[in-house]
Formats: sequence, structure tokens, C-alpha cells
Amino acid sequence: MATTDPKPIFIAIIGVGGVGKAFLTQLDTLRLRLSRSNPPTDLRLIYARRSTKQLFSTSWTHLDIPSLTTTLDASGSPPPPFNETFGQLASGPGRVVLVDNTSSPDLGSLYPMILQRGISIVTPNKKAFSDNFALWSSIFSSAANGTGSPSAGYVFHESSVGAGLPVLSTLKELVETGDEVTKIEGVFSGTMSFLFNSFQPLGGGGGAFAAEVKNAKDLGYTEPDPRDDLNGLDVARKLTILARLAGLEVESPTSFPVQSLIPKELESCSSGDDFMTRLPEFDANMDELKDAATKENKVVRFVGSIDVASKQVKVGLEKFDASHPIAALKGSDNIINFYTKRYGSNPLIIQGAGAGGEVTAMGVTGDLIKVLRLLQ
Amino acid sequence: MATTDPKPIFIAIIGVGGVGKAFLTQLDTLRLRLSRSNPPTDLRLIYARRSTKQLFSTSWTHLDIPSLTTTLDASGSPPPPFNETFGQLASGPGRVVLVDNTSSPDLGSLYPMILQRGISIVTPNKKAFSDNFALWSSIFSSAANGTGSPSAGYVFHESSVGAGLPVLSTLKELVETGDEVTKIEGVFSGTMSFLFNSFQPLGGGGGAFAAEVKNAKDLGYTEPDPRDDLNGLDVARKLTILARLAGLEVESPTSFPVQSLIPKELESCSSGDDFMTRLPEFDANMDELKDAATKENKVVRFVGSIDVASKQVKVGLEKFDASHPIAALKGSDNIINFYTKRYGSNPLIIQGAGAGGEVTAMGVTGDLIKVLRLLQ
Repeated sequence: MATTDPKPIFIAIIGVGGVGKAFLTQLDTLRLRLSRSNPPTDLRLIYARRSTKQLFSTSWTHLDIPSLTTTLDASGSPPPPFNETFGQLASGPGRVVLVDNTSSPDLGSLYPMILQRGISIVTPNKKAFSDNFALWSSIFSSAANGTGSPSAGYVFHESSVGAGLPVLSTLKELVETGDEVTKIEGVFSGTMSFLFNSFQPLGGGGGAFAAEVKNAKDLGYTEPDPRDDLNGLDVARKLTILARLAGLEVESPTSFPVQSLIPKELESCSSGDDFMTRLPEFDANMDELKDAATKENKVVRFVGSIDVASKQVKVGLEKFDASHPIAALKGSDNIINFYTKRYGSNPLIIQGAGAGGEVTAMGVTGDLIKVLRLLQ
Repeated sequence: MATTDPKPIFIAIIGVGGVGKAFLTQLDTLRLRLSRSNPPTDLRLIYARRSTKQLFSTSWTHLDIPSLTTTLDASGSPPPPFNETFGQLASGPGRVVLVDNTSSPDLGSLYPMILQRGISIVTPNKKAFSDNFALWSSIFSSAANGTGSPSAGYVFHESSVGAGLPVLSTLKELVETGDEVTKIEGVFSGTMSFLFNSFQPLGGGGGAFAAEVKNAKDLGYTEPDPRDDLNGLDVARKLTILARLAGLEVESPTSFPVQSLIPKELESCSSGDDFMTRLPEFDANMDELKDAATKENKVVRFVGSIDVASKQVKVGLEKFDASHPIAALKGSDNIINFYTKRYGSNPLIIQGAGAGGEVTAMGVTGDLIKVLRLLQ
């Protein structure tokens, strides 16, 4: 319940790359708005860290946000081990929210300890929630919004699937209000969406597969090494998270069938460049898939699906009728279809940009607002 | 923040029709789940009311839910004026959440008083939030999650637009995280969706307009008197709510252009039956619209839109390209497109059933869960 005496809430941020920078801009705006709200909230950024540098406001006063990355570069100090940092943060004069804008599995493995120390976590870090099931259980048995102590921290990770799209909050609400989720199906990768919307657009056309991969890479839609997208693991991690929220005890993102688009023969390529040079050798295989789909008035898309009743999770290529919402997707949009008992034959659909610094940071900022409400 | 000693939270329900009954079933399940959670929540239904009867558990013990409507019919007593009831509820031994499952503007006008007395409100009651702007302001200046006292009640009304679809929560998050919503456009009525998806399906076909209205009525998709759908006011109320959340001070659902599908000549019809008998006289007008759209490879749909920058809100018929998501809608689904600065040219889209007892109650139950978290 809200109280009339505003205690400061302290923000610690790890990772100041694309998402981190966008988050900081949103935090600065939020901070100003909350300082003027009734009752006001006193939000203070007191810690920032990237791989080799950190800034710690040991007086627990607010660090200036617009100059933060410059100050971090110019006068940051080498960061101590995480344990030490979280010890310091936990012993401060008030509640701390950690904003983990990294994709570090090492930091993810520390979440249970961090939460138990009363520090809340908001993060787009997929790896923390898609590692082995024991870590997932440990995170939520440590959190105040799981089965942990009421004095533990809260944890939210909306942006770990679909960036700022309200995917996890919607799934949680379906489950918590007693609906029965029967199937979840969708396009969960902006890269794969762009790639297949270009490879086989609705209405025909599209180039050779390797050329479309190269184009997607040149436009910045893929990871620096496109194999990190084509192996399907990114989508498998998101499916792992969704399946667990739907009640399935999925052990890891490699414990169900995941189709890799890296040809067997190229698995041993020494570099991304080598891989890209040789990928055109396999265009005929992909064209065959495209042609087969075209003959059925369908298109090929790279999707993930969870059949809750049969506990089947899978990731890979599927064919969709031209009239299916998945076929009509545009650009690099994600689409997530929730089939449930209440919603019947027409699913509840969420669609839109599922990647990018701004929209990913939006999910993190939204989670921060949720934590602030719970801490007040 | 959660505490270790679970105090009971009391639920009062007004309206036990379709939505109310579905809500009660969901409440019974939620209550059981929360009683077993850690820490447990002691949720008690202590008040139920419909137009002529009420049950009040003056000992503040839980009323049995499965037998509630039978007991209400058999041994309910005539209800006193609302003022008296809320006085009793506010002076009880703990926090009360009012679940208003009515569409009563009279009850809506009491929301400020109810909130000021510390009673929280969750409701699908559109009329409460789409009446004059002064009432809207008064509600949110009275609520703890507005600018009211921290000891006031919280208010949530997700189901007032799009039923259980996460429409209002998504719009609020876009605004709160600092995105700039430029335009909201969509199909906001299950009735209008079904009617126009039947009148002019994608790919051609569809019957005469009056016949499709009759069919929709026979299938239970319209209000008992279809004029209550065709006048566009239901959609105008939803647009009023969305526009206000997007920051526009819309005075009322009649303060912007709303196209009524009731022909001028039939405005004086004495009854719904009389209206339905004469409606076929105007089929030629509707066919003309359909044919004009077909010639442009478009379809006609009944939509609402809010242009935030120019502050223009309007409701009525529009033509959409066959490839537009609004054209591809199925059955009685709603679709809501949020165009924002962050999401760029491709909107954030929410789609699915936007009417029906189960999904409307789901939005109410979801709101109740939010309030419970804030009260703990």
C-alpha cells in the first residue's frame, strides 16, 4: 500500500549498450515524472556497470543520467566481483532495483542470491530464464512475487520474449485468472520474421535464401555472425520461457526439437564469413521448400509452437495458408497467438516489433514501474 | 509490500448477470489458489447485489459462491440506497474491493465517493468512464492509483474496452514509459465486427445489410434491440476512454463525430421490431458502399480512430485494403492498432474476442489480482 513518506528507491544498472542506453533515456523521463507525482517517488540511479568499468555513488545520491556513459568511460573504476557489488547494494539505506541489460548467463545464475538479498530485478536477459529448470525454480522460489520471502526482491522479465510487446504479462494473466492455455504459436524472432517475409513474401517473389540472409545481415537485422540467429537457439530460449509460464517443466532450450537452418555440411565452418561464402551452395534446398509451399498456396515461416496438453514444444519451419495471420506478418514484426479455452477457435493475438533498443527498453521500464508500485 | 500476516480482503459484487456469473466462477477458483499461496491471501465474498435483492454477510464471513445466485433469489433482502451500502462496507474490519458488473451510470457516478471511502473498484462498466469529463477527473483524483489519497481505493477497468484483451494496460504502459502514441485505430465492437465480416467478407460474397443484421441478431451477436449497436454509441464510449488515456480531454461520447447506421428515416421507429421490418428499404445504400469499396479492392468496416496530434476522434464506416489487418478480421473479433513513435510504421496490434461473459470476466479478475497485489 502507498505511504505518504517517500523513501528513495535506488536503481543499479548493468549493461549500457543499445538497450541500456535506451533504458537510461526512459529512466530519466520516468524519474522526472515520478518526482512530480502525488505522492512523489524519489528514484535514484546509484550504480552503473559495464564489462570493465563501474560507477558507484557511495553517498547514495543520484548519478546524472545524460552524462552517465561519458563519466563511466572517463572516471569509472574496475568493477569488483558481482558478489561484492550485490553485498554493497543490499546493505544500502533502501530498496534497490537491479536493471540487468546484459545477456549474461553468469549474472543470471546469481539472480536467486540477488533476490534473497532483497534486491529486485527487471531485465530482458533471456538466458537467465531459459537455462536449466533448476535455476528457473530457484529464481521464483527466491522472489517476493514467487514463493520467496515477502522481504525478498521482485523479478520481472517482460522483454525476454517479444521485447516491449505485452506477451508475458498476457500469458500470466490468462493463467492466473484460470483460463486454460491450449497452444501458443508464433514468430518470435525479428530476424527470422524479416528473413522469411523477404524470402517468400505473400503474393510471390523474394530472392535466393543466402542472398536474403546477406541482405538481412547488411541491414543490421542479424547478429554479427548470422549463425547465431539461424541455429534457432534464440527462438528456443523464448519458447522455453513461455512453456514454463504455461506450466510445462521444460528442462532447457535444447530439450525439445529445434530446427537449425545451418546446413549440416556447414556446421564446421571456422567463421561467419566462411559460412556466408558457402551458404549459396544450399539455396536449392530452400527453394524446394518454397516451391512446395507455393504449390499449396502457402508460405514458409520460421515459427515456434507449444502444445500444452501434449507438452510438445518445437521450433522450425512450417507452412502457413496465405490467409493465416502468421503469413501476413510484415517487416521484422513478431506475432504471438494464444489459443485458450476461453478464446475458443480465434486466438488472442499480440503483434508488433519484437526487437530493437527502444521497444526492448520499454518492456524493462514497464517492469520497473510494476516493481515501484509493489515497493511503495 | 507483502506482509506476513494475511488480513482478509473483502469482495462486494453488484450485478450477477452473464459477466457477474462468469466472474463468480473465476473468483471461486482464484480464492482457492490464493488461500494456498505463500503467503496465503484470505479473500472473502461478503456482499452480493442485483436490482431487487442483496445478501450481506454482516459477520464478514465468506458467502458460498456456487450457491450464491440461488441464495440471493431465495433469501435476499431488498437493497438499501447505494450510499448506505457503501457506508456499511467502508466501516468493516478490512479493505473492500467492489466488483461492479453492471452497466449502470448511476453507480458509476458514485465511484469518486466509493474510492474516497477506501473501497477499491474493478469493473467492465463503460458508462462510468465515458460519461462527462468531470466525472472521469473526479474518479482519478479520488483513486490511490490516480492523484487521490494513498488510503483511497484503487480503480481498474480493463474490460471496459476490448473485454479481457490487454488494451488499456498496454496503452497505459506505452504512455507511462514515455512513448508517444500518435494514432489508435481499430474495430472495437464484436457486433460490428461480425456484422461487417458477414456483410462483406474478404474475397467477396455476403448478404444484404438488413438480412445480415437480422442474422447477427438471431445468433445473439446484437443487443436485444439492434439499434443499440447500430447507433455507434457503444464504440464511441470505448473511443472516449482510449482517447482520455492517451491524454485527450474528450468531453463525452457525443462530443465527436459518430456515424450512426440507423437511417434518418427510421430514427422515429417506435420499436426494434418496427425498425427491423423497415431496414431492408435501405439495403441499396449499403450495397452502394460495398460496391464502391469492392471496385478499389477494399472492404467496408465499422471502426473507431483517434488521431492524437490533431485531437480528432471519430467513429464510423471506413474502407480498408484487402491486405490491411482490419480487413482480415474474423468472426466477432476486435482488433486494436496502436501507432506510436517507438513502434514506427508497423503498429502494436492486439486482436481477439472483445465480448462475451468469460473473457469480460477475465479482465475483471485480472484487475482484481492487480488490486490485491497493491493492497498486500
